[in-house]
Amino acid sequence: MTIPAHVQVLLKRLREKFTPEKLREQMAACDAPFRTLRPVRDATEKSVLRYWERLIGPASHIDRDLIADTASLAAAKSYSGNIENYIGTVKVPVGVIGPLRVNGINAARDYHIPLATTEAALVASYGRGAYAATKAGGISTAVLYEGVIRTPAFTFDNILSAGLFVEWVVTNIKALRSAAESTTQHGKLSSVEPVIDNNVVFLICRYTTGDASGQNMVTIATHALCEKIVADCTVPIDRWYIEGNFSGDKKASALGLMTGRGRKVSASVILPAAIIEKTLGTTTQEMLAYGRIADLGAKLSGQMGAQAHYANGLAALYIATGQDAACVAESAIGFTRMEARGDDLFCSVTMPNILVGTVGGGTGLASQSAGLNILGLKGTGNGAALAEVTAALCLCGEISIVAAIAAGDFTRAHQSLARLR
Amino acid sequence: MTIPAHVQVLLKRLREKFTPEKLREQMAACDAPFRTLRPVRDATEKSVLRYWERLIGPASHIDRDLIADTASLAAAKSYSGNIENYIGTVKVPVGVIGPLRVNGINAARDYHIPLATTEAALVASYGRGAYAATKAGGISTAVLYEGVIRTPAFTFDNILSAGLFVEWVVTNIKALRSAAESTTQHGKLSSVEPVIDNNVVFLICRYTTGDASGQNMVTIATHALCEKIVADCTVPIDRWYIEGNFSGDKKASALGLMTGRGRKVSASVILPAAIIEKTLGTTTQEMLAYGRIADLGAKLSGQMGAQAHYANGLAALYIATGQDAACVAESAIGFTRMEARGDDLFCSVTMPNILVGTVGGGTGLASQSAGLNILGLKGTGNGAALAEVTAALCLCGEISIVAAIAAGDFTRAHQSLARLR
Amino acid sequence: MTIPAHVQVLLKRLREKFTPEKLREQMAACDAPFRTLRPVRDATEKSVLRYWERLIGPASHIDRDLIADTASLAAAKSYSGNIENYIGTVKVPVGVIGPLRVNGINAARDYHIPLATTEAALVASYGRGAYAATKAGGISTAVLYEGVIRTPAFTFDNILSAGLFVEWVVTNIKALRSAAESTTQHGKLSSVEPVIDNNVVFLICRYTTGDASGQNMVTIATHALCEKIVADCTVPIDRWYIEGNFSGDKKASALGLMTGRGRKVSASVILPAAIIEKTLGTTTQEMLAYGRIADLGAKLSGQMGAQAHYANGLAALYIATGQDAACVAESAIGFTRMEARGDDLFCSVTMPNILVGTVGGGTGLASQSAGLNILGLKGTGNGAALAEVTAALCLCGEISIVAAIAAGDFTRAHQSLARLR
Amino acid sequence: MTIPAHVQVLLKRLREKFTPEKLREQMAACDAPFRTLRPVRDATEKSVLRYWERLIGPASHIDRDLIADTASLAAAKSYSGNIENYIGTVKVPVGVIGPLRVNGINAARDYHIPLATTEAALVASYGRGAYAATKAGGISTAVLYEGVIRTPAFTFDNILSAGLFVEWVVTNIKALRSAAESTTQHGKLSSVEPVIDNNVVFLICRYTTGDASGQNMVTIATHALCEKIVADCTVPIDRWYIEGNFSGDKKASALGLMTGRGRKVSASVILPAAIIEKTLGTTTQEMLAYGRIADLGAKLSGQMGAQAHYANGLAALYIATGQDAACVAESAIGFTRMEARGDDLFCSVTMPNILVGTVGGGTGLASQSAGLNILGLKGTGNGAALAEVTAALCLCGEISIVAAIAAGDFTRAHQSLARLR
Repeated sequence: MTIPAHVQVLLKRLREKFTPEKLREQMAACDAPFRTLRPVRDATEKSVLRYWERLIGPASHIDRDLIADTASLAAAKSYSGNIENYIGTVKVPVGVIGPLRVNGINAARDYHIPLATTEAALVASYGRGAYAATKAGGISTAVLYEGVIRTPAFTFDNILSAGLFVEWVVTNIKALRSAAESTTQHGKLSSVEPVIDNNVVFLICRYTTGDASGQNMVTIATHALCEKIVADCTVPIDRWYIEGNFSGDKKASALGLMTGRGRKVSASVILPAAIIEKTLGTTTQEMLAYGRIADLGAKLSGQMGAQAHYANGLAALYIATGQDAACVAESAIGFTRMEARGDDLFCSVTMPNILVGTVGGGTGLASQSAGLNILGLKGTGNGAALAEVTAALCLCGEISIVAAIAAGDFTRAHQSLARLR
Repeated sequence: MTIPAHVQVLLKRLREKFTPEKLREQMAACDAPFRTLRPVRDATEKSVLRYWERLIGPASHIDRDLIADTASLAAAKSYSGNIENYIGTVKVPVGVIGPLRVNGINAARDYHIPLATTEAALVASYGRGAYAATKAGGISTAVLYEGVIRTPAFTFDNILSAGLFVEWVVTNIKALRSAAESTTQHGKLSSVEPVIDNNVVFLICRYTTGDASGQNMVTIATHALCEKIVADCTVPIDRWYIEGNFSGDKKASALGLMTGRGRKVSASVILPAAIIEKTLGTTTQEMLAYGRIADLGAKLSGQMGAQAHYANGLAALYIATGQDAACVAESAIGFTRMEARGDDLFCSVTMPNILVGTVGGGTGLASQSAGLNILGLKGTGNGAALAEVTAALCLCGEISIVAAIAAGDFTRAHQSLARLR
Repeated sequence: MTIPAHVQVLLKRLREKFTPEKLREQMAACDAPFRTLRPVRDATEKSVLRYWERLIGPASHIDRDLIADTASLAAAKSYSGNIENYIGTVKVPVGVIGPLRVNGINAARDYHIPLATTEAALVASYGRGAYAATKAGGISTAVLYEGVIRTPAFTFDNILSAGLFVEWVVTNIKALRSAAESTTQHGKLSSVEPVIDNNVVFLICRYTTGDASGQNMVTIATHALCEKIVADCTVPIDRWYIEGNFSGDKKASALGLMTGRGRKVSASVILPAAIIEKTLGTTTQEMLAYGRIADLGAKLSGQMGAQAHYANGLAALYIATGQDAACVAESAIGFTRMEARGDDLFCSVTMPNILVGTVGGGTGLASQSAGLNILGLKGTGNGAALAEVTAALCLCGEISIVAAIAAGDFTRAHQSLARLR
Repeated sequence: MTIPAHVQVLLKRLREKFTPEKLREQMAACDAPFRTLRPVRDATEKSVLRYWERLIGPASHIDRDLIADTASLAAAKSYSGNIENYIGTVKVPVGVIGPLRVNGINAARDYHIPLATTEAALVASYGRGAYAATKAGGISTAVLYEGVIRTPAFTFDNILSAGLFVEWVVTNIKALRSAAESTTQHGKLSSVEPVIDNNVVFLICRYTTGDASGQNMVTIATHALCEKIVADCTVPIDRWYIEGNFSGDKKASALGLMTGRGRKVSASVILPAAIIEKTLGTTTQEMLAYGRIADLGAKLSGQMGAQAHYANGLAALYIATGQDAACVAESAIGFTRMEARGDDLFCSVTMPNILVGTVGGGTGLASQSAGLNILGLKGTGNGAALAEVTAALCLCGEISIVAAIAAGDFTRAHQSLARLR
């Protein structure tokens, strides 16, 4: 059989439904008139209801009342800095785990952690990991790096001009830094690393951003830096772009994996053999045995780094605390390690791209703000601590899933916890 | 300066705050007593309030009322199949865009699309792309592949046993398929691909999963397949695991990029020059010029595939419609292309790992279900259409961001739309 | 210091040597007349000497006699199917190691292995590994996959045509296979896997190629397959290309890593503790400890797979036996594992992209043929055995370098063995 | 068909040849006595012939005389610093191309380039590219980065100790640099970048290495640096290793792709439309059309970077000039770009990991030295120029293969040039 099965199945299914002529018609561009929604920036109860007039049809009034419930209508204005074309809210269920003991440089106490998800077994699994880790004395954590990136790109007629441009940037770095930092109270430009590909120059601009996640802050600062360049630079620039799709914003990248983006955090715990047996229902040796297979699977399948399911914990925590959930794409890479320490088990995660803030973004919204308050980490001075708690949380998830699969419990847990749907 | 700036900054900051002794104490394991939360599977109003008794302290009663509002308390039971340790809901604001015209094999009409996000400018940007694409006659889409993966792993004493095991599996494939498919009404096993690394065998089990996203379905089916193997196989198996961390579940992987996971969808549109100028405020040539830089940046920074920000649209749609937001980590990879077609611009995305369902998971929850109803895609028969709409949405986002950066509008948009926070 | 040190150093060095004006002049295109070398396909003594007339100047007569020595001049004609513009030969020194005991499916005896390299310590290191492995009873090997790839690409006006094209290919696969296989006695087409990116279709054509490395064989066969398509296909093809730069030919790729290219071979041995101590001067525990670090380093630095230095053994064996040395780029990826087996050490390599032949290519040249004869693997029937020996060799290299670094011997060995230069 | 075809074919073939019992026996460890070759460091004619006594059997006296020819016997001693267990030389045919005009920062004249390969069509193809580029006024080149890497690894009891270690290193960097640089006349330590993964610290030590490729130089210097650390560091080190398998030595890695290893060089040329038509037999538009497909194929198949076949030119030049051929594995990654410049074609390559030297390694051997003399680049002061010529050569190869595939000539060329074998 020379053609893979899945190709044949797909073709057969298509043929049963369509002739080529039918498909050609269906897939062609169509200039039937349409009426686009009028954009709304500053939402009001009225603007919400006007939208719903258009949505009723496929959607029902019941649907409207579920999304545009009374509270969401009343709060319309409060969302105006966070969304456009507002029509209400989706309610994501939140579970809580804890206390999780964190012995970190920046986070150093017991935390209850809110997790927003619709996937059964997730909260239970992380909770189990947190219990084992806390019982073992807690998770040590450290922020190892901090730096949000923007990478504007500049194009030139040739490589020599590109080189002279880099020289100009290096010579004028102080003025450029001033321009960048003048736009922000909390952002500091820590380095500018030029990368040349012949006639194109990318400038990797790294910033510390205080307690904010900082993606908008670095955009604005870098824009000012670029405008200063464009105004003063003696080398003729062909075109320039605020972002050369190089920074790793919203996607897994080798750059982020290697040099970090946002905060790089490492977290670890040594689980005593007795706790593994009693709490996790398996043994140090069985966890190590599966850890080796999981690591091999990560490499064979071409992961970036090697880990089991950071994304689960990250998405749940990001949603519950008003972080940018799209950043899960870049945050969910890193390195999980498990090693024997005598009869006990050393477990660690090192996550180079944690993007969280305790001010700005969605953190100021009402229920998200409440999520941060559960952690006790809302507002100024808590950004690094939240990053450490995030890594500690992900470590709990790794411990729990490795134990579950090693013990053969994984399927059972999912089957039973999703039973009530 | 031999040591990178960021290392020096971090060390200096630490030294100002801590002595090594202080840190040693703070980071050490600590056996202070703690009281873990009692796990709750079947939430009730009472169980929710009991949790909040523990959370009040860092959190306030106001926080409680924001998360455990009356409706969330009343609905506690309805979330029991989707979350454990339920304490209420987080309200994620939803914006709407559309109509977006999709001319697809499975999705073939105009759609309004709900997007849940806390990031200013996202909805406006996708809305602008949707308007341009619809004005251009709509987006052609096609599901190119379907197959959710589980990859159990088996270990043996040596490579010969691994080989004999594979032979046994191949010989008994019909019985194994029956075992797997007996657990599910909608899941079909389309292929089993053995991958050997010396004494370890991974079986890549690919399924079609009907209209469900299907991650639990394939876990349960594969568990049955494995138990059949373990019961009948004549080759002695050392250990086995339901998942060898090979399937790409919840993480970007080369396997997913190359062979697909979930649904692989391609979407394209040809934007006439006039629409680019009028709607997007730039030109075909300027978009192509930036497209080349964006593609170069993607490669230089070591992305998987090359795209700008699929994650934004994916996260917003996944949250609004009850998909698994953690899957953004694996879905947000793929290939965006832009090419001249005379004076016009061909734009496409090909996304190999779209994981969406219109039944199961979080799709049955009240407000999420309402999100699907806005699309008119709730329930049986709509899975493939939702996948096509998802890809079409991401194409709108690519068009809009490329145009914005090409035109120099990107920073301005973010600055202005986040102004009200 | 905002600008990395290396940028500043490079700029400073440039400035000391050049003004921008000087550089601009030096780097500009220059239309000074030149006289290109006349291409020669069928080399003769005369053609060689005519070339050298042009080369004398920077090169001396001594240089000529070193490359165009009497034997190389006399053999000029014999190289005509392997090189153009022949001017003589470079002499690469060959060292021998062995016997290496291989207990494989295809290679099952003791081998002496010729290694061509100019790097001190390489032969000694591989020899040490071979001694340890043979003393341990030899290396078990197995070919796990075979399939050389060509991936022609076809472009269409839109995705629907691309889909119809795939359907046509699937429907006509028998005729296409006949066309491909009609060009070759040994090549068999084992699968054709279509990959669609919107309006572009790549066909992954996999072949077994008998005892040849087979890269030309599959090019010619695939060309025939494509011409058959172009002649008969009813779907209008826009453009087509014999290779869409997708096959992984001459470069590391995730495709090759995951599905194999050429032959995939796994090799393993269990080293008794006593042999590790006596022969390698270290211990099982120390090798495992370093193995964990080496694996972590591989992941942190973003390798494909995880291994130490396959390339050393591969390049040396490929050159000594007339293989295509450029294929080192694709062959030098894979997976090295080390695990405790009681007090002993299990070591394995799994290499998905070994490209070797025992007929064709450079294997028929005089000294290269002699290299194959040392192995006893020249000619028909030996391709798979040579692939297994190659993997076994690389395993020896991994064992030796891991032991050397674990024992702290690595620097010493290189310092001492390069001392005579 | 649930099981892939290639698995079934392989299993069938095995079954025809073997029973499991037969295989079990054949693959088992075997303790038959063997007599290992006695290692020889300082080769003599006698030592060579003694080895051959052992090799005769599978190999013949004719084979011996082809490898251990009179000249190779006489030169035995001269190879002693480059190889162990010497048994003679393999003769790799060399073709020449040129002149290739290079307008570089470091290489700025016309060069004839020796290429050692056994693959038909390679020299002709690169020669054609060189002709087109020279006719277009030559190739502009620039070294953009220089830095050979060693990355020793240190392990600690926990992350706090790892952090204190980094602080110690930063504080003592001057003394460490002195220790490193005291071992070498030409090596300079340009940066030390610590990378922490919990309790493990890797130090990325970057050096400039003058005109040598420098891999041994940096090993020795880093060894001294490490010994200084071990002697003086106040933080207890658990274990340390001269190389943590992090540097990318002999393998493609994201680290090398992103930050460079050896020399990073960019090379470009603008090919006038007329030259493309006359010399390359195709057009700017056709080359661009294929260039887009080749770029897409690179991304779809998961290459590092995107290029066609750097490895061919690299391997041929490395072998002909005494470079380390194993470094092809790391050098053969990078970025090829093609863009329209009006009717003409801009082509560039940027190669981050070129590892070449004009002193040291194999460059001092007789015929390899002659190879460098053909280039006029032997000895001190030429390292950077050779790196630029290398990149220019690879650009010629990219131009030629893209033109050949665009024009449909690729198969024909390989078929015809290999015809004489």
